[in-house]
Amino acid sequence: MQLTILKIGGKVVEDAQVLDQVLEDFIQIEGAKILVHGGGAKASQLGKDLGIPAQMIDGRRITDAPTLEIVTMVYAGLYNKKVVAQLQAKGCNALGLSGADGNLIQAHKRIVQKIDYGFAGDIDQIDASGIDRLLKSDFTPVFCAITHNQKGQLLNTNADTIAAELSKAMASLYGVQLLLCMDFDGVLANPKDPQSLIPKLDQQQYADYQQRGIISGGMIPKLDNAFAAIASGVDRVKICGPQTLLKGGTTLKK
Amino acid sequence: MQLTILKIGGKVVEDAQVLDQVLEDFIQIEGAKILVHGGGAKASQLGKDLGIPAQMIDGRRITDAPTLEIVTMVYAGLYNKKVVAQLQAKGCNALGLSGADGNLIQAHKRIVQKIDYGFAGDIDQIDASGIDRLLKSDFTPVFCAITHNQKGQLLNTNADTIAAELSKAMASLYGVQLLLCMDFDGVLANPKDPQSLIPKLDQQQYADYQQRGIISGGMIPKLDNAFAAIASGVDRVKICGPQTLLKGGTTLKK
Repeated sequence: MQLTILKIGGKVVEDAQVLDQVLEDFIQIEGAKILVHGGGAKASQLGKDLGIPAQMIDGRRITDAPTLEIVTMVYAGLYNKKVVAQLQAKGCNALGLSGADGNLIQAHKRIVQKIDYGFAGDIDQIDASGIDRLLKSDFTPVFCAITHNQKGQLLNTNADTIAAELSKAMASLYGVQLLLCMDFDGVLANPKDPQSLIPKLDQQQYADYQQRGIISGGMIPKLDNAFAAIASGVDRVKICGPQTLLKGGTTLKK
Repeated sequence: MQLTILKIGGKVVEDAQVLDQVLEDFIQIEGAKILVHGGGAKASQLGKDLGIPAQMIDGRRITDAPTLEIVTMVYAGLYNKKVVAQLQAKGCNALGLSGADGNLIQAHKRIVQKIDYGFAGDIDQIDASGIDRLLKSDFTPVFCAITHNQKGQLLNTNADTIAAELSKAMASLYGVQLLLCMDFDGVLANPKDPQSLIPKLDQQQYADYQQRGIISGGMIPKLDNAFAAIASGVDRVKICGPQTLLKGGTTLKK
C-alpha cells in the first residue's frame, strides 16, 4: 500500500492562494496521505507582537516557556485548524494532530549540550500502528510540529524532522513517498538560476555539490534528514515547491 | 453503554492544581468519556496583550476575524494540547479535536439579527457515529470550543452548547450523563451561602427559583441548555464544581 507524506512550510500555510493550490494538489494524490506543516514565521511574528522575540541559533528556535505557548497556539491551533478546515471543505477527511494526541509521537526534551534549546523535543517513538488505524478509518492526519514527553510536557519539534521520522516509521507498513515542499521548486545547481533545477540527486552527487558549495546552509540538515529517510526504507523523497508537487522537483536517490 | 461528557471552564484549565485534580477525577469515571473545555478568560487576556480587546454582549463574545484567530490559538492550540498532554500523562488516551477535525461538528455562521456576533457558529450537525468510532478505538475525545461550516470557515462556538449538543447527539447511542463543571459547587438557594446547595432540581422548581430571583444571570442559559438536554434523552445532567465532580453538586431532573 502506498502512503504519501507531504510536508509544507509555514510560508505555504500563510499564503491563502498558494495553500489552496497545494491542498488541491495534495488531495489529487492517490492512496493514503499524511500532511505535516510548519508555521515558524507566524510564531515569530506573534512573539514579536507579544514582546517575546524569537531567539534562533543555526535556524533552530530556542523554546523557553512563553515561546512554547506561542508555538503551541500557532502550530496546533491557528495553522493546524486552518489546514484541517480547508481540507474538509475539499472533501478530504482531515484530522488535526499533535504528537500528544493519541500519544502518536513521543519525544524527550533535548539534552543540554553547548546550547540549551529549552522545550525542544527530540523524537523517541512514533506509534505507526496507531497512525495506521487512523488511516484505515479513512482519516487524513494533519500533524503540526508539536510533540510531548508523555509526562505532561509539550515539546516543539521541527516539522521537517517530524515528516522524516513519520516516513521512516510508516515505511514498516507502507511504501512511503515523502514530499518536502519548500518555497522553491527543488534543488538548484546554481541558486541564482531557477532553470538549473537538478531533477535527480544521489548521495555521491550530494557530497560533491556540498564540497563545491552549491548546496549549503539550511538545505544541508534538510537533505541529510531526507537521505537518512531513504536509507531507512522510505521509497522516494522529493524536494519540491508549490508548483512542482505533482510533477518536477528534485528526486533523491540512494 | 454509559458515556460521560464533562465540560470544564477556562478557569479550571488555567489553574494547574485544580486542572490536575479535575482530570484525576475524570479518569476515575467508568465507561466511555468525552471532555469539552472552554478558555475564554485566556483568550480575552491574549486579545488584550495584542491590542484586540474582547467585545462581549450578554456574556457572548463578538468574534471578528482577529478574535477568531485568537480563540482558535487559545482553545484549539494552547488549552486543548495542554489538557491532552496531561491526560496522556495519566494514561488516558486523549485525542484533541475541534469540530473541523473529522468533520465531527458542523455549524453555520450565526445569522445577524439585532447583533452581529461575527464568526460565531451555531451547531447544525454532530457526527455521532464518527465520535462513536473514536470511542470504540479507545480514544477519549477532548473537544475545544471551535467548529467549522465545512466550507473552510472556522467558527467560535460556546463550550456549554457544544457539551449539551454532544450529549443530545450521543444519547442515540449511549446512556449519557453530562457533568457541567463550573467554578462553584452547584446551584445555590442563596448565592451568598455555599452551604445552601440544592442537591436536586426539577423544571418546576427551576421555574420557581427563577421567578423568585434565586437563579439569575449567566446561570439561566446554562440551565436552559441543561434542561433541554434532559428533554432530548440525556439520562442525567449535573451542575458541579471541581470539588463535586464525583460526589455532590446539583442533579437536574425532568
